[in-house]
Formats: sequence, C-alpha cells, structure tokens
Amino acid sequence: MVYSLKPELNILVSPTSFKGSLTPVQAAEAISAHIPPEFKVINLPVADGGDGTLEVLTGKLKGSFMEVDTINPLGKPIKAEYFLTENKTAIIELARASGLNLVCTEHCPAVYGSTRGTGKLVLSALDQKASTIMLTVGGSATADGGVGILKELGYRFLDSRGNEIREGGIGLNDIESIDVSGVDPRIFKIPLKILCDVDNPLLGENGGIAVYSPQKGASPHQVSLLVQGFAHLSNLIGKYRNKQIGDIPYGGASGGIPAVLSAFLEVEIHPGAELILEWLNFNEIIEEVDLIITGEGSFDQTTHNHKITSVILEKAKTLNKLAVVFCGEINQSDPRIIAFSISPGICPKQQLIAHAGKYLGLLTSRVFSLISEIYMITSKSLQL
Amino acid sequence: MVYSLKPELNILVSPTSFKGSLTPVQAAEAISAHIPPEFKVINLPVADGGDGTLEVLTGKLKGSFMEVDTINPLGKPIKAEYFLTENKTAIIELARASGLNLVCTEHCPAVYGSTRGTGKLVLSALDQKASTIMLTVGGSATADGGVGILKELGYRFLDSRGNEIREGGIGLNDIESIDVSGVDPRIFKIPLKILCDVDNPLLGENGGIAVYSPQKGASPHQVSLLVQGFAHLSNLIGKYRNKQIGDIPYGGASGGIPAVLSAFLEVEIHPGAELILEWLNFNEIIEEVDLIITGEGSFDQTTHNHKITSVILEKAKTLNKLAVVFCGEINQSDPRIIAFSISPGICPKQQLIAHAGKYLGLLTSRVFSLISEIYMITSKSLQL
Repeated sequence: MVYSLKPELNILVSPTSFKGSLTPVQAAEAISAHIPPEFKVINLPVADGGDGTLEVLTGKLKGSFMEVDTINPLGKPIKAEYFLTENKTAIIELARASGLNLVCTEHCPAVYGSTRGTGKLVLSALDQKASTIMLTVGGSATADGGVGILKELGYRFLDSRGNEIREGGIGLNDIESIDVSGVDPRIFKIPLKILCDVDNPLLGENGGIAVYSPQKGASPHQVSLLVQGFAHLSNLIGKYRNKQIGDIPYGGASGGIPAVLSAFLEVEIHPGAELILEWLNFNEIIEEVDLIITGEGSFDQTTHNHKITSVILEKAKTLNKLAVVFCGEINQSDPRIIAFSISPGICPKQQLIAHAGKYLGLLTSRVFSLISEIYMITSKSLQL
Repeated sequence: MVYSLKPELNILVSPTSFKGSLTPVQAAEAISAHIPPEFKVINLPVADGGDGTLEVLTGKLKGSFMEVDTINPLGKPIKAEYFLTENKTAIIELARASGLNLVCTEHCPAVYGSTRGTGKLVLSALDQKASTIMLTVGGSATADGGVGILKELGYRFLDSRGNEIREGGIGLNDIESIDVSGVDPRIFKIPLKILCDVDNPLLGENGGIAVYSPQKGASPHQVSLLVQGFAHLSNLIGKYRNKQIGDIPYGGASGGIPAVLSAFLEVEIHPGAELILEWLNFNEIIEEVDLIITGEGSFDQTTHNHKITSVILEKAKTLNKLAVVFCGEINQSDPRIIAFSISPGICPKQQLIAHAGKYLGLLTSRVFSLISEIYMITSKSLQL
C-alpha cells in the first residue's frame, strides 16, 4: 500500500466580511491564495444578510445590477445598487443605502438615521416589476424600525399636531396616528422576504435595539430613548393592528425592521444565514470537505446570535467536520472552538484593519504549514 | 492492524521568558497545563543567558542560593541571589543585580546604569571559594562594558585629572588611565565563563551598543555618545593592551561586557543558548520528541541574533522535527516559521502583558485541538 506524502484534504474556505477591511470575497481570496497547492480548495465566501451579502450572492446568480439615485441614512444624496435576477427577484442589501459604512457614528445614526434610502430602492424594484423582493437587513446604521422605508411607500406617521414625525428612531416616540391612504398598492402584490443576520427580538433584555444601538453611536441615554420609542410604537401597533411585535424572533435585527414592517406589510422573516447558505448550495458542498475555514472581523458573544460564523460552526459540528475560525478579534474563551486571531500581537485597531489582508494571508500560511506537518508526522507513524 | 484514535505524539515544551510577564518556568507551565492529556509532554523551560536563566538551570542542579546585599543599576541598595552548585560553580545571572527589570527606562540606565551590583556578586562568589564563575549576561539595563564589575574587583578608571570616572556608559569617554594596582588577585585563579544571549559584536552597524541601547532608554543622541565612548575605550585597549575588542563575536552582548572584560580578565565567551541547552540535556531530549513548542515575548528580527528561540528552531530544522513558536508579538513575516501570537486581536501592550498566561493557555488549547483533529482525519483517511 502506498501513502501520499501530501495531505489529501479538501478545504472549504467560507469566511464572511471582516467589517471595515475585507469583504467576504476579499477575505476568501486572502485565505485561498495562501493555502499550499497540495490541498484542494473550494472558495465559497458567505454572508448572512450583513455587509457583502449581495457580493456573495450575485457571484452565483444571473442578472444585473440596477443603480438608483437615493440617500444615505442622514439624507445625503448617493447612488446605490440592487440586483435584479433573470427571474425578477430584486435583492436589496440594506447596507448599500442605509449601512453603517456610509456614515460616521459620531453623527449618531442610531438616533437620527433613516432607512428612506432603502425605501427608494424598494420603489425602484416595484417600478422594475420585480416578482419578489429580498431585503437583506444586516449592517444597518439605523434604528428607525424601517419607518423610513414605509414613508417612501406612502405611509404617513403623524404626531399629536398632525405633523410628520422627525426622521430616525428619535421620531418614534411622537407617533400618534398613521395615515395609510397614500400607500403604494404594488407592495402588497409581491412577496417581501426579509433576511436577518441576528435573531434578537425587538425589545427585552436581549432586544436588538438595546444590544446593537451602541455600535451605531447611541449613548446609554439615547439607547433608553430609542427603547422607549419602540415600546410606544409597539403599544400603538398592539392597540390598532392587534399585533404583538416586541418578541418576534429576528424582529430586532437591523434597528427593528423585521418587527415593524411585519405589522404593516405581508413579510416573510428568514434567518439570513440559512437562506443564503441554501442559495449557495452550502449544505451539499460541506458534505464533501474535510476542513472548513470560516471567519469574520469580530468573533464575540454576538456571533452566537445566529450570525453566519456560528451557523457554520453548528453545521460542522453536526456533520463531525473540522472547522477553524480566522478572525480579527477573538472575544470569547471557549477553548473547544478552534479560533485564531490574525493579529501579530500588540496591535491598535487601525493597524489591524489596514493590514487585515496581509495578516490573514500570513495566518493561513502558518496554520496550513502546521496541518501539513501534522499530516506527515501522522502518516509516518501509522506506516511503521 | 489497530490504530489509536488518540495522537501518539511526544511534545517538548521549551519556551523562554515572555519578558515583563512570564518567566520561562511560568510560560512552560501555562502551555503544558493546556495540552490535552493524550499527549506525552516533556516540560523543559529554556533560557540563553537572559532573564530566567538561573531559574531554568537551578531546576536541574544541586546546590544553594546565596543572597548578597548589593545595588541595582542606579545604585539603590537591593538584595540579589546567585547560585552555588555542589561542585562550587557560581552561576551569576547579571539580570538579578543589573537587569532592566530592576529600573525604569525613563532613568536611562543605558547611559547612567552600572554593573557594580553584579561585581558585588562576583566578589561574594570569590569569598565562597567558587571553583568557576559562570556569568549570564542577558537582560541587562546597562551599557558600561562591565566597567562596574571591574571597579568592584579593584580596577580604577581615571580621567585626565586622575579622578574616578562617572558611573555608567556616560563615563567611558573620560577614561585616560587605568590603575590595576589594587585588583583582587583571586579573579585570575578561576575560570570566568560569560554566557551571552546575542551574538552582536561591540561596535559597527550591528554592534550591540547601537542595537540594544535604545531598549534601555537611550535616545539616538545618547546612543551615539555611548558608541563614541566604547570606540574611545577600544582604542585605549588596542594601544595599551594590544587587543582588538570591537568585532569579537558576542562581544557586544549586554552593553559590551564580554568584549571589555576579555581585555582585562581571562574569560571564556560562550553562546548562552548552546551551553544552557547542553546543561539541560536538550540535544538528547529533542531526538525523542515529535513536536517542539517554543516561545518568547517578542519574536522579531533580534531573535535571529542567536537568541534561544532561533537556536531551537535551527536544531529542529536540522533534525527534521516540527517546531511551533508561541509568542506575545510576531514581528517577522517568514511564513515558513509556524508562529502564533497569543494576542486576542486588538490589544494594547499592558493588556497583553497582564493576561499573557491566560492567552497562552487559550492559544495552546486551540492549537492542540487542531493537531488532534488533523491527527484523527489523517488516521481515518489512511485506514480506508
């Protein structure tokens, strides 16, 4: 019997974005380029509705990008694209028009930011006679519950004097009535699927508003104002629409969009990770590999709120496959998870972000040198 | 044929100190405690004449510690120990009385620090009738060429007015004459072995004074003053003693001690790494193991100046053994060296130092989980 002296391992490279530095495709390329040629590599960057979702999906789909004149979360004119597949599914990545990458957190988009810009993409999709709208909501700068999107569709949110409320989460507390007379009827005629990157409900201790608003520039006081505004809107919706939106799973993703939209429109709420992995044929591909390299910028406790990295780790565990996480920062101490930081040691955030690609390549080289060596030692010891 | 499902690998754990946080013994313990029980572990912390040398050696030797009233590099009274073996070898770790860990770099010990404190340990060893003195010179705060040691032995370094020069490297430029009339004759009757942690010569581009003085608080201007002082002393020695000390290998270790002492005393200069590894029986032990874990605080270009980590890597390469480096900081980009930082990502120096033990344990757990998994995948694939 002849044994190979080279590792016969099939590797699946499936990182998501390293926020602020590498898109999922860039991260996958930085890894794949540094895996020695004797390994068989499948390059499959992933996303869960957050940044880079469109990039990941459109690599696998036929269709074209549609460019729209729209606005960023703070109202500045920008151009943003969505993707229209051949069969007329419009894939709208909320982060493209209402993402945290478009504004500075010092302007506190959690409080003042609006999703109107994404609303304009939805309107464009309706104009294009989309047969389905798929809205991926991760990476948002906003916490307005999608009220900006609803405004663009014709809803009017009025205060006690009958005036339109202010833009952003700050306005929610002032809502006294909602005028639906001008709503665009086309939105009720096609399925609206919302893909969420985290499973937090809207309110409560683990509520998405409380957990994620600080990342979007809200101070503790502002977080409590936002939570109060959403509690007020929930009450109104409970009273007038007879819907309880506070504890819907995934409802608190992206500043409450899934919860609030579900009170006004017919929406399907999907865990983004699962649906996107299905589109990518991930479940079949993972069966054929020996080792999965996944990764993300910050691997911390929020990863377990059903973010893609934790979904992949779960799948790997179920199938008894080896999974390794490469990340910018590890902020959890479970030694059973094989995770390595790309950091060279003492490293400020700016440096880690600026050199993420180089560091990720170096880490990959080192881990695969170790794997090759262990493979060879094992092979030799078993042949004796 | 039955294969084990557990890795049958012998591991040698041989880190040196993580300066400022873990001694070699502490580092070895943090690693060993996190290697899964199925591996056979040999715990052998190492040193090369730098910090922790005494700790590493005395774990293997019979003898006793001798405590001496002495002074730190800046003249403050301290107590320091050396080790006297059963056969009367005095092992003196310079860092215990003249080490960088004893003073603050803001006081610029490179310029003002003296090795007199170590001289007092040498005198004590003579009083104890030591048969050999082994002086390990790494980790020094000083750059006085061991003039402080020579002063304690009775040498008088005089300026043009016949006064004693100032303490520290700053005084060297003023030496005009050397009075040897009062030198303690006992020092010439026993071998003095100097163990060096780096192989830099005294002067020149890669000279120890220029390369290491900045780590000891010297500004660029002060470095050039020191280099000038040593050039002056070298000239004097060349003229009056007919010795060229500027380019002796290892002569520039520890602020020039090996070079300067060799002009006045009969000394043997040893690469610390090799000699200590010999004492530890390292060369026989490494033959029997499959994998070596070594490590140090900062794994950078100076590591290759014959520091212990690079010596171990070389030995592993020659014997075709797998070696992995665990370190606080990696500052080199050779992907063929399998090195991992213990850093969790974005990490200030204080945090890395304060939690080095915890991070080292976590990294060990993760690397050995990976090794176990690869072992199992390889075993399974080879059995098919």
